[in-house]
Amino acid sequence: MTRGALFDPLFGGDRVAARLDDTAWVAALVAVEVALARAAAAHGVIPAAHAEAIAAVELDLDPAALGRAAVEGGNPVIPLVRALRAAVGPEVAPSVHPGATSQDVLDTAAMLLTGWAGEILLDDLRGAADAAAGLAAAHRDTPTTARTLGQQALPTTFGLVAAGWCAGLDRARTGLASVLRGLPVQLGGPAGTLDGLPLPVAADLAAGLGLADPGVPWHTERTRVGELAGALGVAAGACAKPATDVVLLAGTELGEVSEAAPGDSSSMPHKRNPIAAVTARAAARRAPGLVAVLLAAMDGEHQRAAGAWHSEWETLADLLRATGGAAARLRVSLEGLAVHPDRMVAGPPDVGRAPELVDRILGGRPPS
Amino acid sequence: MTRGALFDPLFGGDRVAARLDDTAWVAALVAVEVALARAAAAHGVIPAAHAEAIAAVELDLDPAALGRAAVEGGNPVIPLVRALRAAVGPEVAPSVHPGATSQDVLDTAAMLLTGWAGEILLDDLRGAADAAAGLAAAHRDTPTTARTLGQQALPTTFGLVAAGWCAGLDRARTGLASVLRGLPVQLGGPAGTLDGLPLPVAADLAAGLGLADPGVPWHTERTRVGELAGALGVAAGACAKPATDVVLLAGTELGEVSEAAPGDSSSMPHKRNPIAAVTARAAARRAPGLVAVLLAAMDGEHQRAAGAWHSEWETLADLLRATGGAAARLRVSLEGLAVHPDRMVAGPPDVGRAPELVDRILGGRPPS
Amino acid sequence: MTRGALFDPLFGGDRVAARLDDTAWVAALVAVEVALARAAAAHGVIPAAHAEAIAAVELDLDPAALGRAAVEGGNPVIPLVRALRAAVGPEVAPSVHPGATSQDVLDTAAMLLTGWAGEILLDDLRGAADAAAGLAAAHRDTPTTARTLGQQALPTTFGLVAAGWCAGLDRARTGLASVLRGLPVQLGGPAGTLDGLPLPVAADLAAGLGLADPGVPWHTERTRVGELAGALGVAAGACAKPATDVVLLAGTELGEVSEAAPGDSSSMPHKRNPIAAVTARAAARRAPGLVAVLLAAMDGEHQRAAGAWHSEWETLADLLRATGGAAARLRVSLEGLAVHPDRMVAGPPDVGRAPELVDRILGGRPPS
Amino acid sequence: MTRGALFDPLFGGDRVAARLDDTAWVAALVAVEVALARAAAAHGVIPAAHAEAIAAVELDLDPAALGRAAVEGGNPVIPLVRALRAAVGPEVAPSVHPGATSQDVLDTAAMLLTGWAGEILLDDLRGAADAAAGLAAAHRDTPTTARTLGQQALPTTFGLVAAGWCAGLDRARTGLASVLRGLPVQLGGPAGTLDGLPLPVAADLAAGLGLADPGVPWHTERTRVGELAGALGVAAGACAKPATDVVLLAGTELGEVSEAAPGDSSSMPHKRNPIAAVTARAAARRAPGLVAVLLAAMDGEHQRAAGAWHSEWETLADLLRATGGAAARLRVSLEGLAVHPDRMVAGPPDVGRAPELVDRILGGRPPS
Repeated sequence: MTRGALFDPLFGGDRVAARLDDTAWVAALVAVEVALARAAAAHGVIPAAHAEAIAAVELDLDPAALGRAAVEGGNPVIPLVRALRAAVGPEVAPSVHPGATSQDVLDTAAMLLTGWAGEILLDDLRGAADAAAGLAAAHRDTPTTARTLGQQALPTTFGLVAAGWCAGLDRARTGLASVLRGLPVQLGGPAGTLDGLPLPVAADLAAGLGLADPGVPWHTERTRVGELAGALGVAAGACAKPATDVVLLAGTELGEVSEAAPGDSSSMPHKRNPIAAVTARAAARRAPGLVAVLLAAMDGEHQRAAGAWHSEWETLADLLRATGGAAARLRVSLEGLAVHPDRMVAGPPDVGRAPELVDRILGGRPPS
Repeated sequence: MTRGALFDPLFGGDRVAARLDDTAWVAALVAVEVALARAAAAHGVIPAAHAEAIAAVELDLDPAALGRAAVEGGNPVIPLVRALRAAVGPEVAPSVHPGATSQDVLDTAAMLLTGWAGEILLDDLRGAADAAAGLAAAHRDTPTTARTLGQQALPTTFGLVAAGWCAGLDRARTGLASVLRGLPVQLGGPAGTLDGLPLPVAADLAAGLGLADPGVPWHTERTRVGELAGALGVAAGACAKPATDVVLLAGTELGEVSEAAPGDSSSMPHKRNPIAAVTARAAARRAPGLVAVLLAAMDGEHQRAAGAWHSEWETLADLLRATGGAAARLRVSLEGLAVHPDRMVAGPPDVGRAPELVDRILGGRPPS
Repeated sequence: MTRGALFDPLFGGDRVAARLDDTAWVAALVAVEVALARAAAAHGVIPAAHAEAIAAVELDLDPAALGRAAVEGGNPVIPLVRALRAAVGPEVAPSVHPGATSQDVLDTAAMLLTGWAGEILLDDLRGAADAAAGLAAAHRDTPTTARTLGQQALPTTFGLVAAGWCAGLDRARTGLASVLRGLPVQLGGPAGTLDGLPLPVAADLAAGLGLADPGVPWHTERTRVGELAGALGVAAGACAKPATDVVLLAGTELGEVSEAAPGDSSSMPHKRNPIAAVTARAAARRAPGLVAVLLAAMDGEHQRAAGAWHSEWETLADLLRATGGAAARLRVSLEGLAVHPDRMVAGPPDVGRAPELVDRILGGRPPS
Repeated sequence: MTRGALFDPLFGGDRVAARLDDTAWVAALVAVEVALARAAAAHGVIPAAHAEAIAAVELDLDPAALGRAAVEGGNPVIPLVRALRAAVGPEVAPSVHPGATSQDVLDTAAMLLTGWAGEILLDDLRGAADAAAGLAAAHRDTPTTARTLGQQALPTTFGLVAAGWCAGLDRARTGLASVLRGLPVQLGGPAGTLDGLPLPVAADLAAGLGLADPGVPWHTERTRVGELAGALGVAAGACAKPATDVVLLAGTELGEVSEAAPGDSSSMPHKRNPIAAVTARAAARRAPGLVAVLLAAMDGEHQRAAGAWHSEWETLADLLRATGGAAARLRVSLEGLAVHPDRMVAGPPDVGRAPELVDRILGGRPPS
């Protein structure tokens, strides 16, 4: 069974999706177990040789088999630990999964995956913003009409329109990057009391995985997931804005821009559909509902939520994919965008402070 | 790349998911093209022999290749039609996709898939409701305490608790079944004017696919999709209620019920987690946000929405999978539910009209 | 403190809102207590004279005072019952609120309010649909261009565009009317066991209030609320579609329609903003998130939810107001819509079956 | 017509709501016009005497009248400007609303209101967190059982449970405070080009209102609104978590905590409902759907969105009220929370590193 192969390329999530598929989940789970063993060994919780034995295991885990085995205990970490213990042999087996609980491994793996996918996402947001900045610079003084409530209003420049896109994408990227830099490991043990583990193990686990040390377990303190959801939702919205504008500006009657590779139609070969922007919008429109699911999941019960936590896993991956798709497709749209000043409304010559505002936006762009 | 193999079994959507994967999408798209050719042939739009030639084609379409080819034009129907035309040869090629537009095929395929998945969903809703009904009958007179706002209130019977679950599941199933019975084909042609096709072709297309004839195209009139979303959201909510109750009643302190196969833990083997109910809740919690996305997609522009329509495709499949998962896992939970009257609070003997209400609910159950 | 006076007129919800304000809530709560007393008296639960004494009370309840008094017990029914008992005197006091619990009164009052607001909503949906039908009939054969993904595609008629609006509004209205006809009373008593009340009291309560008898209590079986939410969400979406089209068609470059009273601007007096459609869209956009909240509230615990139930009250009123606003403002937009065939694209003359489809839609309209 | 008087006290939003009602909106709009006149005067755009004349006007604006007058032009700023101009007389009139457009005033007023409401919100979040910290300190070593998936798991301390609540509330407060500190003025003029205004006017406007200078207009660059929505959603979720725990821990069977003023019932006087936590949950449950509406509104068209922008106004106020209500009611719950160690499970004595983790959380609390 495959899912996503048909639609991911269209909605732009294929590069992000490749870092979020079943294989990636399993790889992340295994990476966490390995890093945990090493961190535990560094503090004498298990022998160093055991940690290396665990790291050396080459498991050929079938996600589907792991998925089926996950049903019994309620998460895939249980059969994964079982498989790891079997693979390392009876002597090393007790050193697998030292002091941890399933949630530690799953939460940390989810953060790891988020980081992997986030790199692509930031890159595409940056690419889209750079393309918008290029358009803004090139058309700093190109007069066009501002439209409010769909009506032609007063003159502006196309450069300022594009600079606005750039500003939103940059700001969203900065916000998301900040959240991504702080992606934490989770380590609390079965009851969140770090029973049997020295406190500093978490820092070593974080160092081993390139994640942050949250200082304390956050198994039922989900503000971090909520912040991540919010930042992704903002990024999707920042992509939706220029995508909407491109769709409108590329409309037959306006014709002020066109995509490099407009789509044709199964029935109307003359169509010039701005399909990259259309699919960017489609991807972005899926984000707000997914954000709502993640925010609603913050109300988990006691020391491990009975359902709310579990609802995060795929929703987070879906949100990364949708936002990633929006960014990727928007980037394609903007990088190939042809601008047609001759189609723009020749209004009165006064474009206000539009060029100055372009300079201000482009001059204040955040670093990569 | 696979997705879903790891988590679908756990969240119960694997049976539904198998009817919604990439292969199923492609099969549905092909089925629509074949049925359309036959319906068109029945009205003399294309030669009958061409329709049969189209039906006889054995395409070995790789969803991933189709997905990549979909990017150019903005949907997978364009490359599918191309592939079909190539397969049938130049003489029959013009008879492929007669009078239709991509949206006709994609919308109809989405309804077809919904029907396929819906069968499973209705079956699991029925199974869960039957299990609840069985519990209600068996415990019609078993006294327990009603709890309001988490506090013990007055006596009721466990049968009435379970009968309430049954009532919600039955009502949600009836509502969903009604929507599923009316799942329509879409046929409007490029502009929704049925240009070049006799009106009755839609009826034949519907008959060929086991769908309903909507009378007129609904390409930008998405109330049907909204109704479907609403019915699925209600079904998910109807599953969430008993799942929540089972989780609470199975809590250590209450212990009034237990699942047949409670989950263990990677770190605490003594745990008896009601994992089927937990994962049913998790699946159900994803529905409201997905419903919101589909409702928000009703505002599409002109005669084909530039993004809103596209946002429906995967969202609808995800919603079917989430709701299907909730129903499937709840069914497992309720079918194996052990009830422990000895753990129930021996309150005052007056259970009011609880047994009568059980009779009324069970006596008024809708047919399968 | 007032809320809504500033924005309700703009977003069209003022007529609906007047039936949903604090005074209406209090009136509905009182009406339920009165009808309950009469229904109980009809079955000998309390003396008929007591019921009439309760009905005759003229309470001058200040919603703010009731609201403050509601905090202690967690809902406004508790202080309301207290006030009623004080008003009727010690002899009749025990006959107030016979056999009921707060949820019975609050849920029934919410349904009563929904019915009151629903009348306006159905009327505005009907008005908007009638206006769309009028446009469809008048422009059955007026050629214009269909637009797909923002691009001019093939010819259609403006009548078919408007007929599509009508079809969606009619379908949404039919669905909503069906839900509204079945709005149920709630009667279950403290534990949902109808302890101390004959079963037929609910039927009398329903008859007294013009609501339906649900047969059994539904205090924790919230499919009815979910169905109502879904129908409202669909109605909002059915309003959003024509509102979006009007905004686009009234754009300066298209200019194919204009509103009767386009808005001006605080800074640009030449603007002709389609403000009725704009505000209809704004109102409609609020619906999906509110629907999601109501669907998520279906998972209440045990025999009275500890929060989920309470989250329904204002959300339902907000959803009625938003949907009502969308319908009211769309009606204004469509009833005053001027159509400018001279601005429409003179495409090739073949409008396909557009006129036939208009006839089909207009001929099949549901009754009022 | 009043709204909110009945339910705001119960759901805790009355203190926040008083800063968000119609009167507050009008006050904020007027404050922006006054500050704008002064900022413009500071740069010689209008005479200083005119600015002071505008500031000196005592308008007695009826929100309902303003609301009705807002319909024509599509927002309340248009009639407000008209009223201001009439009040200052013909000479000063042209100096009212210098260089601005309605959106400048409305967006800035919305930020001003957000700041006013935000103060209360931060205070209540702080109060709730302090209460949680107090509980954590007092019960640093009080053994209890951790519960995972509703099952008793391993020992922890009640202090760590409460410290987790504190950590979430502190983190959410810090995030929200950061967003609130950056609340920007909006100033762009009709087309967003600052036509006719020197760039530094925005900085003076910001200084005059205690808001931030965004550097450039953000009329269609809504990441700031999205970030605000996200931070509020996270804050609501951070309140939902302890509220859920309190409801569960106060359940009859657990009885580990009780509220200071538990609610009674209209029918069951023996009930001890944790009504502050219940209503905190109810308020918090409304947030995710409202956040989704605001995120979805980021996709506005061109230089002023035709509906998306308008959908923000009331939604933002509703979200502030809901989140504020959640914080206020949670604070009441936690400040009065009685803890019953005698009801806690006497498990094995090993509470792991729970006390250390309490120290770490309490030692690392952010400043007020």
